[in-house]
Amino acid sequence: MEAIKQVRYHVVEASGLFEPDSTLLLSGCADAPLRPGDRRLVVIDSTVDELHGERITRYFDHHGITVTLLPLRADESVKRWDLVTDVVDAMNDFGIDRRREPVIAIGGGVLLDVVGLAASLYRRGTPYIRIPTTLVGLVDAGVGVKTGVNYGQGKNRLGTYAPAVATFVDRSFLSTLDARHLANGLAEILKMALIKSAELFGLLEDFGPLLIEDRFQGSTPALETAARRIVSEAIHLMLEELQPNLWEQCLERCVDYGHTFSPTIEMEALPELLHGEAVTVDMALTTVLGRMRGDVTEHQAQRVLALMDRLRLPLWTDVLARPGILDGALADTVRHRDGQQRLPLPVGIGHHRFVNDVTPEELNAALRELDAARRRTGQDIGPVAGLVGAGEAA
Amino acid sequence: MEAIKQVRYHVVEASGLFEPDSTLLLSGCADAPLRPGDRRLVVIDSTVDELHGERITRYFDHHGITVTLLPLRADESVKRWDLVTDVVDAMNDFGIDRRREPVIAIGGGVLLDVVGLAASLYRRGTPYIRIPTTLVGLVDAGVGVKTGVNYGQGKNRLGTYAPAVATFVDRSFLSTLDARHLANGLAEILKMALIKSAELFGLLEDFGPLLIEDRFQGSTPALETAARRIVSEAIHLMLEELQPNLWEQCLERCVDYGHTFSPTIEMEALPELLHGEAVTVDMALTTVLGRMRGDVTEHQAQRVLALMDRLRLPLWTDVLARPGILDGALADTVRHRDGQQRLPLPVGIGHHRFVNDVTPEELNAALRELDAARRRTGQDIGPVAGLVGAGEAA
Ligand SMILES: NC(=O)c1ccc[n+]([C@@H]2O[C@H](COP(=O)([O-])OP(=O)(O)OC[C@H]3O[C@@H](n4cnc5c(N)ncnc54)[C@H](O)[C@@H]3O)[C@@H](O)[C@H]2O)c1
Ligand SMILES: NC(=O)c1ccc[n+]([C@@H]2O[C@H](COP(=O)([O-])OP(=O)(O)OC[C@H]3O[C@@H](n4cnc5c(N)ncnc54)[C@H](O)[C@@H]3O)[C@@H](O)[C@H]2O)c1
Repeated sequence: MEAIKQVRYHVVEASGLFEPDSTLLLSGCADAPLRPGDRRLVVIDSTVDELHGERITRYFDHHGITVTLLPLRADESVKRWDLVTDVVDAMNDFGIDRRREPVIAIGGGVLLDVVGLAASLYRRGTPYIRIPTTLVGLVDAGVGVKTGVNYGQGKNRLGTYAPAVATFVDRSFLSTLDARHLANGLAEILKMALIKSAELFGLLEDFGPLLIEDRFQGSTPALETAARRIVSEAIHLMLEELQPNLWEQCLERCVDYGHTFSPTIEMEALPELLHGEAVTVDMALTTVLGRMRGDVTEHQAQRVLALMDRLRLPLWTDVLARPGILDGALADTVRHRDGQQRLPLPVGIGHHRFVNDVTPEELNAALRELDAARRRTGQDIGPVAGLVGAGEAA
Repeated sequence: MEAIKQVRYHVVEASGLFEPDSTLLLSGCADAPLRPGDRRLVVIDSTVDELHGERITRYFDHHGITVTLLPLRADESVKRWDLVTDVVDAMNDFGIDRRREPVIAIGGGVLLDVVGLAASLYRRGTPYIRIPTTLVGLVDAGVGVKTGVNYGQGKNRLGTYAPAVATFVDRSFLSTLDARHLANGLAEILKMALIKSAELFGLLEDFGPLLIEDRFQGSTPALETAARRIVSEAIHLMLEELQPNLWEQCLERCVDYGHTFSPTIEMEALPELLHGEAVTVDMALTTVLGRMRGDVTEHQAQRVLALMDRLRLPLWTDVLARPGILDGALADTVRHRDGQQRLPLPVGIGHHRFVNDVTPEELNAALRELDAARRRTGQDIGPVAGLVGAGEAA
């Protein structure tokens, strides 16, 4: 039995999405029309609701859309199955008309992942629309097709591949996002830059720190241009990578860069590290690894680590000092990648290659070198004593 | 963004699957090889484990496969999310190697649906293999790509489309299945016959009742041939329907015949009616509807109802007497079918067409006629008084 499935979804540039007269949400995506008189179930991150709920409600009122609002507390610590059932219950209560009344999800990556999972399971697939409100949401969670929740100690252990009909990209939400979560999103953008685009890396060096201050709102023409270019280039690079490999049937995925050790690091450090922060620690480590292999020059490695630091991203976490942590993380990733490491490593800035031969000894040496490097940047988080010994013991 | 996904799975004829020297499970499917020294997580219906566990365990031992067995009580009354987490926990404990250690599911439709859902969610997709042990499993649940569990009052409200790598079809399990569950499976076969194959209908008339006695074990050459032909023809017709429409993107599905009113009937009657019994009530009703519309002759309708009766399937349930039940069921199905009825109705025996214009009055008239008909067959289940009045009140 063989069959073919075609999948189509839209990522729509949508500045000022909820400005009273914007019609982007109504007619900006042909596959998800919204008309006066329609009703919709809107699931919204409760923090976003507090900060932006009024203008959103006013928008729907203004356009004659009857909205049932489900505000949900959504952050990593509650990213569990219970949250999915909250959404399912709301869909049941709403009596959603499958295929004609897509659920609208407004929030960060957690909210989008949870609503996406609920929608993809409900009657084996009910359409949904994503409106990301964090930088991670805009350039990553809102762009791909993955949904999920954590289960036990497993990050995103349960999930589906289920594209939203459309994602509307509106930077205005970032005006209320704190610096740490902006930096968190910049980590994913940095990832794309490191493996795919020296140009994007240059933009980040020139404007990254300023854009954190600006919250991507474009308070000067130069910052507006930079914010727009950085976000759209990151999305573009991401889609380019996803397109031929939407279901990850090919396991050599360069967008997995920074995601070899980070899942374990992130879960172990919960709630200390954000996703992008854990990814940065992974990237810092693998940048050092690349330098040790001669794929990255000393000067390039220093530029990379320095930019991470200027973007307020950590190069280090205490979790790294736990015995065997990296070996365990690698083993877990190998399981996920069908028995091989398939480890994307940087080559210079903007290129990469895949390797399968990283050893515990090499990881330990990289740890030691990273430790020295982060001390030079002045990042001094947690105790270092005993680190190398602990690593070696593993 | 557009992408294409290719899906491939196998349905393997596999008589005597667990006979000591059979190699079908080892090398019968190229996409799911099993080698001495391998280990597998096997999730098995606990009833099947009691009845067939010994020979299954012996088989795996004999071939040097290390098996971790998870027996699960699996029937409609426990087909809930909890059961999915039981499987997920076992996958976690097993430390399953994604893509190289497919979970093996052995059981009826409930067990297969639950394991399928768990596997499809685990790390967003872990392969699994189906070994159906009921007739419904052999010709229906084991052949398609749907997984699911009930949620609240909603049957299979949560689920995915996730084909098993392979399904192994072995009638030997039916030797321990009771007559009622055999009849239950015959209902799904009858469905395929009614809409697609007069020939299969003829086989059912000639051999159906005998095969219930025989439990599809082929105790005479004629019964062996009939059992094989009926099962393989039913599977063949099912695959033929699924192939162009695996994800049900086209909502006019003739295999939905018997499934317009039955989901509601089944959930309302729980635990009284089995799935196929509810489907038969639906088919009896729509056969009468077809006769009233002139698409089915009086003689044909009588043959159909008589065969249902000889296959020990009900033409009727008290649930039908509840006010508004059919209208509610139809409304729910319309929601599921994107706002239209898309109701497959029989045309003669072995053909069908889709209609969108069934009215409450017509349903009531059909109910009345079915009531009269089932009395003629001698099936007299529950009170009839007030039935028509109740129906009309709806
Ligand atoms: N599906 C994917 O492809 C994909 C990709 C990347 C990340 N993710 C997932 O996304 C999650 C991380 O996403 P995230 O970083 O957006 O985290 P998040 O969703 O937890 O949001 C971060 C915090 O910001 C708050 N918030 C959201 N929007 C805000 C706004 N406009 N103003 C002020 N506060 C706001 C939230 O309430 C939350 O407390 C992780 O769980 C990760 O697994 C998924
Ligand atoms: N996924 C699909 O495409 C699909 C298609 C049809 C039905 N289904 C689902 O399948 C379920 C019905 O399947 P079912 O009829 O197999 O019911 P079931 O799985 O509940 O099995 C029926 C009973 O028989 C027992 N049993 C199983 N194998 C046996 C054997 N060999 N000998 C003795 N007892 C045995 C079970 O323990 C159970 O009590 C429904 O939940 C339905 O939604 C799914």
